Amino acid sequence: MKKIRVELAERSYDIFIGSNMLDGTGAKLSLFGLSPKIALISNPTVFALYGELVAGSLKKAGFDLHTVIIPDGEEYKDLRQMQNIYDELLKQKLDRSSGLIALGGGVIGDITGFAASTYMRGISCIQVPTTLLAQVDSSVGGKTGVNHRLGKNMIGTFWQPRLVWIDVETLKSLPKRELLAGLAEVIKYGVIYDGALFAFLESNREKVLGLDNEAIMHIIKRSCEIKAAIVSKDEREAGLRAILNYGHTIGHAVETVTGYTRYLHGEGVAIGMYLEARLSQMLDLADKDQVLRIKSLLDSYGLPSELPDDIDKDSLLLSMQLDKKTVAGKLKFVLPEKIGKVRIEKGAPEEAVRESLQK
Amino acid sequence: MKKIRVELAERSYDIFIGSNMLDGTGAKLSLFGLSPKIALISNPTVFALYGELVAGSLKKAGFDLHTVIIPDGEEYKDLRQMQNIYDELLKQKLDRSSGLIALGGGVIGDITGFAASTYMRGISCIQVPTTLLAQVDSSVGGKTGVNHRLGKNMIGTFWQPRLVWIDVETLKSLPKRELLAGLAEVIKYGVIYDGALFAFLESNREKVLGLDNEAIMHIIKRSCEIKAAIVSKDEREAGLRAILNYGHTIGHAVETVTGYTRYLHGEGVAIGMYLEARLSQMLDLADKDQVLRIKSLLDSYGLPSELPDDIDKDSLLLSMQLDKKTVAGKLKFVLPEKIGKVRIEKGAPEEAVRESLQK
Repeated sequence: MKKIRVELAERSYDIFIGSNMLDGTGAKLSLFGLSPKIALISNPTVFALYGELVAGSLKKAGFDLHTVIIPDGEEYKDLRQMQNIYDELLKQKLDRSSGLIALGGGVIGDITGFAASTYMRGISCIQVPTTLLAQVDSSVGGKTGVNHRLGKNMIGTFWQPRLVWIDVETLKSLPKRELLAGLAEVIKYGVIYDGALFAFLESNREKVLGLDNEAIMHIIKRSCEIKAAIVSKDEREAGLRAILNYGHTIGHAVETVTGYTRYLHGEGVAIGMYLEARLSQMLDLADKDQVLRIKSLLDSYGLPSELPDDIDKDSLLLSMQLDKKTVAGKLKFVLPEKIGKVRIEKGAPEEAVRESLQK
Repeated sequence: MKKIRVELAERSYDIFIGSNMLDGTGAKLSLFGLSPKIALISNPTVFALYGELVAGSLKKAGFDLHTVIIPDGEEYKDLRQMQNIYDELLKQKLDRSSGLIALGGGVIGDITGFAASTYMRGISCIQVPTTLLAQVDSSVGGKTGVNHRLGKNMIGTFWQPRLVWIDVETLKSLPKRELLAGLAEVIKYGVIYDGALFAFLESNREKVLGLDNEAIMHIIKRSCEIKAAIVSKDEREAGLRAILNYGHTIGHAVETVTGYTRYLHGEGVAIGMYLEARLSQMLDLADKDQVLRIKSLLDSYGLPSELPDDIDKDSLLLSMQLDKKTVAGKLKFVLPEKIGKVRIEKGAPEEAVRESLQK
């Protein structure tokens, strides 16, 4: 089992990465001084696969466990579900020393984190992510939230988990397309921070896609280490942390204009990474060969990189202007200079952006 | 104008106390580096009195101000109103650098603070409290939240304001009963922390009740200083901060069993302070003369201290057991030892509590 420490003063916590460790959840949690009353939040798909294992281990460790099941899907990441969770937690009399355990992907993690941060002004949250995306991204770093009909993740908090407990075995039940979407974020870490991780992905494609234990633990560990390093330096995204948004300015817009049904988040980010690299080249910040290396890696993993012709470029631009990262109308981009190094560009000229969206 | 600093590392902020300073709100806020887009949250009563003054000063300072009016009353401090506020803020495109200004009493302050802490994962909140209770208590210290039908303030966050801006002139429009309810919290500060403040209240009753400028600024300043000192040492109520709950264990229960219609919060706290002092005496922690001094001061200000006969003692006890301060069923009390000094009692025997509720 590998351990990574996220250093955040009194909010520091550990990420554990291993295999076949779900039945150890209860024993681990019994060390945290929580109230016996805890709740597990999951969705029907994940709970059917791993619920019994996790719940059993928690009960064996003496916890008085209540389970809250949320319907599967991003469309349920809203304030109505929050209300349901609050109702359940209060009915079951969870107290200030209680903990919430998120068993699932990003939706479950975000909504559970938000509930934990606002129930009785904040209780413990334990992340047990079961998708690659959640394991390398959303379960680490403390971003929580729900969607609003006027925008994704508009309502939320920064609330660090007490523990992140990653079992790579859960990836074996993950649909291939979701695995690839998670890999897009791993590729992102390579571009923004770590040329060696990028090179590892280039030369270990078969092993990674085949879920070779050693290869997959390596890329999750490196991703978590990079995210931990960045978050430790800038918890609330005042500066450095914004580099994690590489690919996301255009990526989010692509997701938005296609109504969140055509692309998974990671697929949108994959397209965003290539187009933002192209923008970087257009602004003379990156060489063409670096941009092509990014496109080649995305293509080799079967991720999308080009914008389909039927997506309206004006709608994309408008969507970017409405993004919550946009302050006072200025488009903000994370632009790669070379693999492993990016810069933040706070006022990219609209013309260049428009051009980078063309083929 | 008096200034008090609340020291909380990067979350430190100033409280200003003065008179006729509402028209200076805009000029003050223009120093905070906020986005031009800001929102003022208020209720119809307060907005009719002071809205124009504050809004005018903000507009004069160049802010693009939007106003959100919430119906007056504790029953509107709920998630539905939160949803309304989120809708408005998103429609008006407030961004991550925007601020929310709470103009009103505790309800407006709590709900605005909660909205600020959760809009786009946290934006600036400015408290402009217009009731004595909010000026000496709820606007300072960062507790935010809304009620749930299963309990008060069950959903919320700790979110420190950027500024607290107190104009004592607003007290002139405050109903006498609400002024007295606020004074209950001032008396509380005397009991838990400052014998001199308690003595000042004893010997300056006429001036305080007559809203003599110097006397009223003095008690607000001392109350804020005491709260600031306590909150600086224990922001999230891990220990010391709990002493602020003196009178609140029984007080909350009194409010709850009477359906929040019979007593104002401060009146419940007044009853709670006397009964908890009596409990302290019963447990041999306080002398009788200290308890009587507390009762005399409450009585002299026309605040309630005795529990009416028609309130069922079993319902009170049950309500205390359901309180969110109660962990694992143990009743927690703040018990005065003498005026100016209290201790926290984590497991008061139920029999003694029951006895202290009898006349």
